[in-house]
Amino acid sequence: MLFLARMDVNFPDSLTPEQTADFQAREKEYSGNLQEKGIMRAIWRVVGEYANYSIFDVDDHDELHTILSGFPMFKYMDVKITPLSKHPNALKYYLHEG
Amino acid sequence: MLFLARMDVNFPDSLTPEQTADFQAREKEYSGNLQEKGIMRAIWRVVGEYANYSIFDVDDHDELHTILSGFPMFKYMDVKITPLSKHPNALKYYLHEG
Amino acid sequence: MLFLARMDVNFPDSLTPEQTADFQAREKEYSGNLQEKGIMRAIWRVVGEYANYSIFDVDDHDELHTILSGFPMFKYMDVKITPLSKHPNALKYYLHEG
Amino acid sequence: MLFLARMDVNFPDSLTPEQTADFQAREKEYSGNLQEKGIMRAIWRVVGEYANYSIFDVDDHDELHTILSGFPMFKYMDVKITPLSKHPNALKYYLHEG
Amino acid sequence: MLFLARMDVNFPDSLTPEQTADFQAREKEYSGNLQEKGIMRAIWRVVGEYANYSIFDVDDHDELHTILSGFPMFKYMDVKITPLSKHPNALKYYLHEG
Amino acid sequence: MLFLARMDVNFPDSLTPEQTADFQAREKEYSGNLQEKGIMRAIWRVVGEYANYSIFDVDDHDELHTILSGFPMFKYMDVKITPLSKHPNALKYYLHEG
Amino acid sequence: MLFLARMDVNFPDSLTPEQTADFQAREKEYSGNLQEKGIMRAIWRVVGEYANYSIFDVDDHDELHTILSGFPMFKYMDVKITPLSKHPNALKYYLHEG
Amino acid sequence: MLFLARMDVNFPDSLTPEQTADFQAREKEYSGNLQEKGIMRAIWRVVGEYANYSIFDVDDHDELHTILSGFPMFKYMDVKITPLSKHPNALKYYLHEG
Amino acid sequence: MLFLARMDVNFPDSLTPEQTADFQAREKEYSGNLQEKGIMRAIWRVVGEYANYSIFDVDDHDELHTILSGFPMFKYMDVKITPLSKHPNALKYYLHEG
Amino acid sequence: MLFLARMDVNFPDSLTPEQTADFQAREKEYSGNLQEKGIMRAIWRVVGEYANYSIFDVDDHDELHTILSGFPMFKYMDVKITPLSKHPNALKYYLHEG
Repeated sequence: MLFLARMDVNFPDSLTPEQTADFQAREKEYSGNLQEKGIMRAIWRVVGEYANYSIFDVDDHDELHTILSGFPMFKYMDVKITPLSKHPNALKYYLHEG
Repeated sequence: MLFLARMDVNFPDSLTPEQTADFQAREKEYSGNLQEKGIMRAIWRVVGEYANYSIFDVDDHDELHTILSGFPMFKYMDVKITPLSKHPNALKYYLHEG
Repeated sequence: MLFLARMDVNFPDSLTPEQTADFQAREKEYSGNLQEKGIMRAIWRVVGEYANYSIFDVDDHDELHTILSGFPMFKYMDVKITPLSKHPNALKYYLHEG
Repeated sequence: MLFLARMDVNFPDSLTPEQTADFQAREKEYSGNLQEKGIMRAIWRVVGEYANYSIFDVDDHDELHTILSGFPMFKYMDVKITPLSKHPNALKYYLHEG
Repeated sequence: MLFLARMDVNFPDSLTPEQTADFQAREKEYSGNLQEKGIMRAIWRVVGEYANYSIFDVDDHDELHTILSGFPMFKYMDVKITPLSKHPNALKYYLHEG
Repeated sequence: MLFLARMDVNFPDSLTPEQTADFQAREKEYSGNLQEKGIMRAIWRVVGEYANYSIFDVDDHDELHTILSGFPMFKYMDVKITPLSKHPNALKYYLHEG
Repeated sequence: MLFLARMDVNFPDSLTPEQTADFQAREKEYSGNLQEKGIMRAIWRVVGEYANYSIFDVDDHDELHTILSGFPMFKYMDVKITPLSKHPNALKYYLHEG
Repeated sequence: MLFLARMDVNFPDSLTPEQTADFQAREKEYSGNLQEKGIMRAIWRVVGEYANYSIFDVDDHDELHTILSGFPMFKYMDVKITPLSKHPNALKYYLHEG
Repeated sequence: MLFLARMDVNFPDSLTPEQTADFQAREKEYSGNLQEKGIMRAIWRVVGEYANYSIFDVDDHDELHTILSGFPMFKYMDVKITPLSKHPNALKYYLHEG
Repeated sequence: MLFLARMDVNFPDSLTPEQTADFQAREKEYSGNLQEKGIMRAIWRVVGEYANYSIFDVDDHDELHTILSGFPMFKYMDVKITPLSKHPNALKYYLHEG
């Protein structure tokens, strides 16, 4: 099943540049794995904001929460989830069928 | 360039079922054309709401506005556009590169 | 999978009492069926408002949207869906396990 | 009487991992007791967020506030309460009758 | 138990002055009964707005909803309920103890 | 004249438990005096929140602001004031006439 | 005592130009009387909006509500009241002392 | 030209009482000068809040911004500006003509 | 002086296509005149919405309100005005100096 | 293509005056370069607020995000982007054509 996620990142000012870079490196690796596994079907940057829209394809809420709360930067992220279904006007089930 | 669109439909109560059906038929055809042309890269239904999230790939704002305001149901739609760019953690430019 | 739904009903003033009563009767029947099938696990009235909170147990977004948009009063309802997962402090998966 | 509670947790960045873990352990124990006593009838995780929806069955506001403000993490929680009553379409008084 | 209610009235423009007056007369009578029974402990007008704040003393959510949805003008009212409990600094349980 | 006040308390995390307790003790005393003088006609706890609704009977805005800004915890409080008048359906001017 | 009022006018589309003009004429006369009596101490137009900010000097909430709800256009106005007091940095009590 | 300003003050908890008092003293002096020059035509305290409404009479946006950003407490203030014009029902151009 | 205006158009469903077209023609002419006179320095369409951002250069609020409320479609427009001044980092006073 | 940007600056209180001044100097230089290159077509100060409205002319979202996130003060800025297109009533494509 598909979920649209909006994630806004708010690092506290107390983090050092090194800590921030470390978070970002681990986040990149974590995100890469999800993409390779086909769990994260897409991710885009919101232009001008430290935020992303991403599409997850997961068949279980518990699994999805484990994935989302597993992001290294989860503590500093405001995450909103929107369940998506196939649109009646869609020619195909985008990002869902393989 | 990619744009995320959220579209919420609010038909006034004064429309007859026939008028509504006609709008929806023309909207489906219009949307189908956009998908075939690769302008509308994806469209999903927001579960539980008469709304969609869709991804447009257009290289010009004027063209994009012409497309959006050309939807048969545009008058009854609340549309919000969010410009998207490639995310630094993305393994590919999803829905953008062919 | 569990979903919390908040549904707010806004009947237009143009409906006659008979039309309203007919909608409500069909809604009651529809809702009863969902409860008997174990799809709607619970439903409560929000005190003081023409609104409800309800819990749906459905394993597919497309099925869930079909169910929700199938409510007779869907056209007059503002519906918000929140995906739920098992809480780490929960002694059991409430309303989910049978 | 049933109350729906939405609780959002916002730990300040100044807490050490040990302090956070201690809070969470005491919260788990406190929550478990409430569930065993039938005061907390249900609790779910909001997918993607450090938040829960939970159902309380308490017959007195003073008692309910004592319970809620007694949560170890109360100081770091944003809590919203919604009184619930039996829905006219409900086949039973979910989570209320035993 | 005490509940604070905020009620905002929005009559549609289609009501005739006579219909409006009739609603208001029935609402006044209904409200008077509740006050005499000690169910509605207080009611005030919000200065400058067609709205009121009122205090209800009811020991059951189902009863409270029946009371609130029984207001003749319920259909044209936006009602928000806030459960109240005794404040630790209160010298007495205002409007609650007889 | 009657004023409804909603007060939300937000203590910064930097306060020690002793400082917090001291604030609360002074606030309790201050609030008690206002109640004895009939200035604060009522105060209730908002169930589940570190907030109160209270009714002030003061005949002058300057006096009211002096009273409100005199609360020991004023610096940590978000206060919203709503002027109240006698409701046309009220059987008496609640909390106003002695 | 001084009150700042913000009033937003929303005429329904069903009013004829004559009805609208009649409302506006009666409103102008009503407003003029209030100004002559020193009740309405000032009124300004919010640039670009069918709205005003105005200052009322009234010593009683009941009187103020009678005045505000007496505006011919009250039914079509959204009114928000803010109680004002003398500012500690003010060289005089503007619009209050004669 | 007249501008209505709403200013909300939010001192960080890290300021010492002495620093706060110093800010307030400089602010009082600065505000007094503006009033004497007829630039600040009026200022009132919002009852119950560390905020003010004030009226500025300035003929140039650049000058107005210089004035506003020159307030000693500007860094700790949330300022919203509303341009005002003469109301068609106003008997005079309040606070504008001398 | 420069003002940024955001204008959102909401035509009621009761207007006929002919009425709408007439409004739009008169609006276009009115807008053209303002641009020729250098009063309206710029106007853009908000992509995907029946709304515009426009820049006005007017030296008097009363004149600006007359201009804005003179738009043929004013009755159906939600207008928000933001006063602009020269930015300290601007290489020139854009759209202001000739 | 044109984009309207609203940027609100929120420096944390922990920055020293020297750090703030350094940020502002680098921001001024960065902004100057963008203006010279015709990328930033305009920038204005929002009167009374530490915020700006600016117009960017960039033909690619990725480039635009790189530019925006390259602002020295990006970490302390809340940025909202609105895509603009040519308005049907515009006599020219303001700030777009040369």
